[in-house]
Amino acid sequence: MSARVGTSSRKPVSLNLNVRGMSPSATLAIKARCRALCAEGREVFDFGLGQSPFPVPRPVVAALREHAAEKDYLPVEGLPALREAVAGFHRRSDRIDIQPDSVLVGPGSKELMFLLQLVFYGEIILRSPCWVSYLPQAQIIGRRISLIHTAFTDGWKITPALLHDSLRLARDDHRPRVLIMNYPSNPTGHAYSSDELEAVAEVARAFEMIVLSDEIYGRLRYDGAHESIARHYPERTIVSSGLSKWCGAGGWRLGTFSFPPELAWLRDAMAAVASETYTSVSAPIQYAAVTAFSANAEIDEYLGHARRVLAAVAARAVDVLRAAGIQVHMPSGAFYLFLDFSPLAGRLAERGIHTSVALCERLLLDTGVAILPGAPFGRPAGELSARLSFVDFDGGLALERSLARAGEPDGAERVVAEVCARLVRGIEALGDWAKV
Amino acid sequence: MSARVGTSSRKPVSLNLNVRGMSPSATLAIKARCRALCAEGREVFDFGLGQSPFPVPRPVVAALREHAAEKDYLPVEGLPALREAVAGFHRRSDRIDIQPDSVLVGPGSKELMFLLQLVFYGEIILRSPCWVSYLPQAQIIGRRISLIHTAFTDGWKITPALLHDSLRLARDDHRPRVLIMNYPSNPTGHAYSSDELEAVAEVARAFEMIVLSDEIYGRLRYDGAHESIARHYPERTIVSSGLSKWCGAGGWRLGTFSFPPELAWLRDAMAAVASETYTSVSAPIQYAAVTAFSANAEIDEYLGHARRVLAAVAARAVDVLRAAGIQVHMPSGAFYLFLDFSPLAGRLAERGIHTSVALCERLLLDTGVAILPGAPFGRPAGELSARLSFVDFDGGLALERSLARAGEPDGAERVVAEVCARLVRGIEALGDWAKV
Repeated sequence: MSARVGTSSRKPVSLNLNVRGMSPSATLAIKARCRALCAEGREVFDFGLGQSPFPVPRPVVAALREHAAEKDYLPVEGLPALREAVAGFHRRSDRIDIQPDSVLVGPGSKELMFLLQLVFYGEIILRSPCWVSYLPQAQIIGRRISLIHTAFTDGWKITPALLHDSLRLARDDHRPRVLIMNYPSNPTGHAYSSDELEAVAEVARAFEMIVLSDEIYGRLRYDGAHESIARHYPERTIVSSGLSKWCGAGGWRLGTFSFPPELAWLRDAMAAVASETYTSVSAPIQYAAVTAFSANAEIDEYLGHARRVLAAVAARAVDVLRAAGIQVHMPSGAFYLFLDFSPLAGRLAERGIHTSVALCERLLLDTGVAILPGAPFGRPAGELSARLSFVDFDGGLALERSLARAGEPDGAERVVAEVCARLVRGIEALGDWAKV
Repeated sequence: MSARVGTSSRKPVSLNLNVRGMSPSATLAIKARCRALCAEGREVFDFGLGQSPFPVPRPVVAALREHAAEKDYLPVEGLPALREAVAGFHRRSDRIDIQPDSVLVGPGSKELMFLLQLVFYGEIILRSPCWVSYLPQAQIIGRRISLIHTAFTDGWKITPALLHDSLRLARDDHRPRVLIMNYPSNPTGHAYSSDELEAVAEVARAFEMIVLSDEIYGRLRYDGAHESIARHYPERTIVSSGLSKWCGAGGWRLGTFSFPPELAWLRDAMAAVASETYTSVSAPIQYAAVTAFSANAEIDEYLGHARRVLAAVAARAVDVLRAAGIQVHMPSGAFYLFLDFSPLAGRLAERGIHTSVALCERLLLDTGVAILPGAPFGRPAGELSARLSFVDFDGGLALERSLARAGEPDGAERVVAEVCARLVRGIEALGDWAKV
């Protein structure tokens, strides 16, 4: 999809073999591609990058302005007041017992995940489809990844049976392992019920696994009922969060890991490596994040409307796509749909399309609709799957209109009609293209 | 000096052996130690951490306020306007031909150095004493480091002869290598003359080495005459800079690498790994940094006074220390002195002090003066050397007073007497302790 590292160079290069040939992250590459098409004057529907459409909440921006002159290197684990606010956030929102000392602040939870993979000696267990960066991170470090493929019919969820069978296959029940969970999920939008989480926790406990629970979309679960697996498996669950998704501040780069006391050794090892790499997260950003993680009625209202708008956009998109014969689940949260074009495989094959990459390339060229192929999400190359991110609309305006229509039962649908017309047109173009 | 990773845990841990047993960065550890002593009510002179004593220049803070609502993920290589400003900065200040496309922006130049070591396959050549993080970075990644020990009598500089002999010793003239240069230097404060740079460049060219030229203290050379080795070896020199030192914004976390066209493969590999780790540098910080790297009379005036104050503090400290029998060079820039206690070795041995670590521990306990032992800077454990950082004074007030005394020939000395009395008292305490 873009220039690969080292391969186009005519001069001799000397690169780590784990890195040689790597492409930029698939989600960032699609953004560059869309930019190039736009520059050619093409109309592009950017359903590639997963960035919150909403502005950073007003009190959080005000806090950044207020602390703009903070210049000191902060402690590597994070500003004490922020670690306290994050612990309070998890106690309040998730009813899990997190202490300030257990919190590690990093420049994005992606960086923290990289550090975790770097310092931990063991196997990483991933659900497929999985978020695009887990696999390249393991490749860079040279780590072993075990993928558990899930199916559309299971709602793309890890089931206890799938997990158990996959683990037993290694014939090594005490192997050190980290299971990465992510819900509401990127790329499928699914969440787990309390019973489902408990069942996964039971398997994790039986195998003494560490669970990294990536809950960065937790506050974007549409029904507001996000639940953490740490409720069922507190002793070995690391909870990951950050400002990028629910707080609309992807570009600010601040993520958090919260550890149980039993995993202090892992937190300390990550902090030691952090002290030799990024040192600490930008000080003004950390001061502003204290406000973001603290109880705040204005932020709660913002989140209520963000969820309402996203749920309505998702419902509209699902209707259009299903009518075109594409299989897709209504998500429980976040802003992604994971599309399964397999019912249309015969007709797509007639058009010479046999892989998810070919599907997305043709779609982009034919219609200007950019979605990401299933392959970088860990799906088989020949599976006709793709991720659609429905954020290409004016989130600030949508929040404003939703607020104005707060009491109206069909208010959210009207906001979608008013603010997201272009996005809906892009989804319709995708549907029309698939139906041909 | 502080808890080591994994070793104090009673439960089984599973850690990467490259990381197991690591301590937090020596400079950050000393800060934590000083904090603990302060909490006990002890008077502490913090000559450990190397943080600029000066506030972030006013126009840069104003730019951060103005851009506080910027929320988008920026391109992994950096905000285009910032890459342009950085290239302009190097063209203007250093008269070297840097193009905007050649610039890579990262969350601190330390992180960029880590990425360089991670992606490059080859040997790292370092001058000792060297900055504290190069060695642990190589250890984390499992890279080979070759140390070139320099001597007090050479002003701690790499000489062409030392470099040449060290390289020939490997009997492998075409081995891929990166030579890391740093001037004005942390920890010794020395700079190189134009002839010295040219002579090093000649050796580098003969061995086809890449030079990573860490010039983060460039604008803090007291005589304002900083020169880059890229003037003599443009084809394979990477120039490193950032906001942490000359711009007083260590806590903001923004560093830059500028590559020659021939090393585009290295820049691209680093960007690919960046896209899977930190993603991009905090957006509001990048917007503010455009102002910092652009031509600005107010920032130039700030820098003039910062240099004037630092030179005066350095001269005062050197006087006191030499009078106590400690060997030390007057620095050419930055805010460090590298102390050689070897003339006092006999008397220190009588007090049971045989290593740099023992020296610093005893000094801290006896006097409350915190300096860093030579060992983490790559010096032999038994050498009685240490780094003193002279930043423990009110830099904002010092700038103000220096401005008020702009025309006075002894103005800088009077500012030191007025604003840095406590710092001078700490240095005197160190001298008295050494003389006993």
